[in-house]
Amino acid sequence: MKYALISVFEKTNVLNFAKNLIKHGYKIISTGGTYSYLVENNIKVIKVEDITKFPEILDGRVKTLHPSLYGGILSIRNNKKHIDQVKEHNINFIDLVAIDLYPFLKTIKNSHSSHEDIIENIDVGGVSLLRAGAKNYKDVITVCDINDYDLVIANLNNKKLDEEFRLKLAQKAFAHTSSYDSQINNYLLSKINNQDMPEKLTLSFTKKEDLRYGENPHQKATWYIDEFYNEVSLNNSIQLNGKQLSYNNILDANSAINIVKDLNNYSCMVGIKHLNPCGVAIKGNVEELWQKVLDSDSVSIFGGILATNQIITKQVAQSLNKLFLEIIIAQDFEEEALEILKQKKNLRLLKLDFHNTHQIVNKLQCVSIDQGLLVQEKDLYKHNTADWKIVTKKKLTDEELEEAYFAYVVVKHVKSNAIAVIKDFQTVGVGPGQMNRIGSAEIALQQAKEKANNSYLSSDAFLPFNDVVELASKYNVKAIIQPGGSIKDQESIDLANEKGIAMVFTNVRHFKH
Amino acid sequence: MKYALISVFEKTNVLNFAKNLIKHGYKIISTGGTYSYLVENNIKVIKVEDITKFPEILDGRVKTLHPSLYGGILSIRNNKKHIDQVKEHNINFIDLVAIDLYPFLKTIKNSHSSHEDIIENIDVGGVSLLRAGAKNYKDVITVCDINDYDLVIANLNNKKLDEEFRLKLAQKAFAHTSSYDSQINNYLLSKINNQDMPEKLTLSFTKKEDLRYGENPHQKATWYIDEFYNEVSLNNSIQLNGKQLSYNNILDANSAINIVKDLNNYSCMVGIKHLNPCGVAIKGNVEELWQKVLDSDSVSIFGGILATNQIITKQVAQSLNKLFLEIIIAQDFEEEALEILKQKKNLRLLKLDFHNTHQIVNKLQCVSIDQGLLVQEKDLYKHNTADWKIVTKKKLTDEELEEAYFAYVVVKHVKSNAIAVIKDFQTVGVGPGQMNRIGSAEIALQQAKEKANNSYLSSDAFLPFNDVVELASKYNVKAIIQPGGSIKDQESIDLANEKGIAMVFTNVRHFKH
Repeated sequence: MKYALISVFEKTNVLNFAKNLIKHGYKIISTGGTYSYLVENNIKVIKVEDITKFPEILDGRVKTLHPSLYGGILSIRNNKKHIDQVKEHNINFIDLVAIDLYPFLKTIKNSHSSHEDIIENIDVGGVSLLRAGAKNYKDVITVCDINDYDLVIANLNNKKLDEEFRLKLAQKAFAHTSSYDSQINNYLLSKINNQDMPEKLTLSFTKKEDLRYGENPHQKATWYIDEFYNEVSLNNSIQLNGKQLSYNNILDANSAINIVKDLNNYSCMVGIKHLNPCGVAIKGNVEELWQKVLDSDSVSIFGGILATNQIITKQVAQSLNKLFLEIIIAQDFEEEALEILKQKKNLRLLKLDFHNTHQIVNKLQCVSIDQGLLVQEKDLYKHNTADWKIVTKKKLTDEELEEAYFAYVVVKHVKSNAIAVIKDFQTVGVGPGQMNRIGSAEIALQQAKEKANNSYLSSDAFLPFNDVVELASKYNVKAIIQPGGSIKDQESIDLANEKGIAMVFTNVRHFKH
Repeated sequence: MKYALISVFEKTNVLNFAKNLIKHGYKIISTGGTYSYLVENNIKVIKVEDITKFPEILDGRVKTLHPSLYGGILSIRNNKKHIDQVKEHNINFIDLVAIDLYPFLKTIKNSHSSHEDIIENIDVGGVSLLRAGAKNYKDVITVCDINDYDLVIANLNNKKLDEEFRLKLAQKAFAHTSSYDSQINNYLLSKINNQDMPEKLTLSFTKKEDLRYGENPHQKATWYIDEFYNEVSLNNSIQLNGKQLSYNNILDANSAINIVKDLNNYSCMVGIKHLNPCGVAIKGNVEELWQKVLDSDSVSIFGGILATNQIITKQVAQSLNKLFLEIIIAQDFEEEALEILKQKKNLRLLKLDFHNTHQIVNKLQCVSIDQGLLVQEKDLYKHNTADWKIVTKKKLTDEELEEAYFAYVVVKHVKSNAIAVIKDFQTVGVGPGQMNRIGSAEIALQQAKEKANNSYLSSDAFLPFNDVVELASKYNVKAIIQPGGSIKDQESIDLANEKGIAMVFTNVRHFKH
């Protein structure tokens, strides 16, 4: 006699599954809700209490944790001692276990859930049954996913339910329990104050999609989602047009979205190329923003990515359509704008609510190294210009300080060593990724040319020498914003005073590699 | 009456722990091995079978999975219904659970373990007990780490064992079970053929050390290890001198080690600065290698990182000591070399066995994006020059092809767009990270100068135009190695033929961002 233990929270398809198992000679054992549901639908079911001879207690906290069930699941069928013990204790072999778990993550995400509700939704019995079935996969079929019901039945029908298939189901069960406990861990961590980085770090992700390839065609790649968090992110965008995002697209789009998020108090538009901003503008309407971004660097934006927390209008769409862009991410698109942009079949159009306030933000980011992972807090530092120090004779008005603030936020998102030149709330020069600071300054100022006149130059780390001040003065830069902290700060300050340039020390460095 | 359930594989300190619990009025319940051990040491213990009235069966696979225990753990102490049911079934409250799990990971790593041994070391009962205790943390103390025994006792002594502490223990238990199941998942995945990227990805890490900070001082950072794998990596190196590695050091060192690994069939030395190789040399002894690396770029190596699969000699150490280096990673150091190098207190000296053949290599790498993770296969492509195609009239001898191979391996490790110029198995020019290919070629060739004469120029992606060939011919480059695949390939080939340059198509691109 074959027994199948079924205990599921989500009843979809379980009826059909049970019917088919009975056809294959299984007797069904079931608990509380599943038992009632199956009985109501005229399926012959054995109550789990009739097996355990022990009632369900503690509001269902204890119902299946019993040797009469676990002996039936965990016994090795070709082990004589096991067989004898199973017989001695009148235990039935349980050859199939189909379990889904209390919806822990869903309970967390339900804003009406109390802490007690959440704790109650930590499944103990279900996890144990899955793990027991999966451990004994050579003798037991373990189903943790309702989407596998049909496959299991099909394999039973075709007599293809071999050890390899049971092994795959077992692996899936352990992936499921590991992920489940990782979510519980995340939740409990969020309830503990002043948390150090934990000794054991467990990260759990769900596949969003397999990508065509990674950085190169011979590298497979997949985009995974961390369902615990809910952020303004690419994952929450809706794709309205265009082909699948590539690995490099995703990295670029992620950067673009992050710059807009950092300037979300303003209307904002960002152009990105190869992970660096080639144009950033704030204030003004979407037409003005687009003109500014285009004006920032009309060459680099070619083949780039655009992101804005504004609605793309027909007028902007007409202008955008003249260019080759990879992706446009916007708060929304006017109907007519969408029509225009959709003429390009490959152009990826993504709608993203930048103003969504229901966020659960992951404050950590990670990157692989061989045999490990480097985890660090994201650079979410928010500057308050009241904390800044103007170190020169020349001071800045509040209005000018706002532009200095913008200049410093922009440079934070440029690859180090980074220099940004800003004027009228628009980038006019961006110098990324050089080995020395003067090299980046040269690139940024050469790009800005006469627009550098009366501009704001920001540097992501301190100026080691006064050479950047010297160069900035040649371009008539109005103010320099930098962390300060070099042993040669005074030389830079002296030269700025001599040249009539204002200099701000922010005290906080923003390397980004 | 308070009961404590103790069942541990590792007996260290458990005696003292049990004694102290008894002092605090606990009665100890225990299973098989732990029971015997405690009884032998004159501790009064209750056998778990005396509670469950059910014997241990299936060689210990089923011993604690019983409602008499779980009712005692999972009952809510201020819930009248729960209390009544517990009384009705003569269940004792269990207020403390101390469990360690079967050593699954250790069993995997033991080369004598059979698959059956490994499966047997999947703990079912222990995980269930931990999870039950942790779920009911408001009433139960759950100890999953033998290192916490003393802290628990200290808190009992000081009457500080409050809900917050129990919550922390509960969180730790779920981190532990999640990590445990993630290892099982990893192992089972490794037993399944033709695996797609899994639907659920669970990654589990153990803290190696908290770092001083991340990319910037306001970002906390931690270095985690994936204990499932065993690679030639920074984690397996032994630090012989110097201060703690920084976040950026670790990334640089990881890059340096990877280049050496890719050229491990040769004697090899690599200099790294800001994630890019500034000098790579193969063949010859360690003195020759160091002269070549230094000769490659004697400016950039300042403040850089050195890695070699050779033993650092006294002679090399004397020369190295004249420079400022951040880190030296070597197969080993001669005693006298170590003495010399240790004169610099801050210089980090790391010994790493590059020739360790007992590797379990993680073929995947990952990087965070907001609310998710991008996972891709590492770029582990191994070229075979027999697969390459020489597309010009001018051909290369086998010896020359070996140099071309070296040139192509080097460029794979340079940030895109990347050009490397090689001569006599040594880099003479490296052009990393430019927006266009000719820009990188200019940097590499300007650095090489007259050394470019008769050199090998490699490009990580195809040449979009023939401008790089034009420039290379001015420097008398002997051969160009590139993937090919541009619509303008023929123009490049024609120009190479005209200029007498050999050109190799490798067919495989190596972008690295």
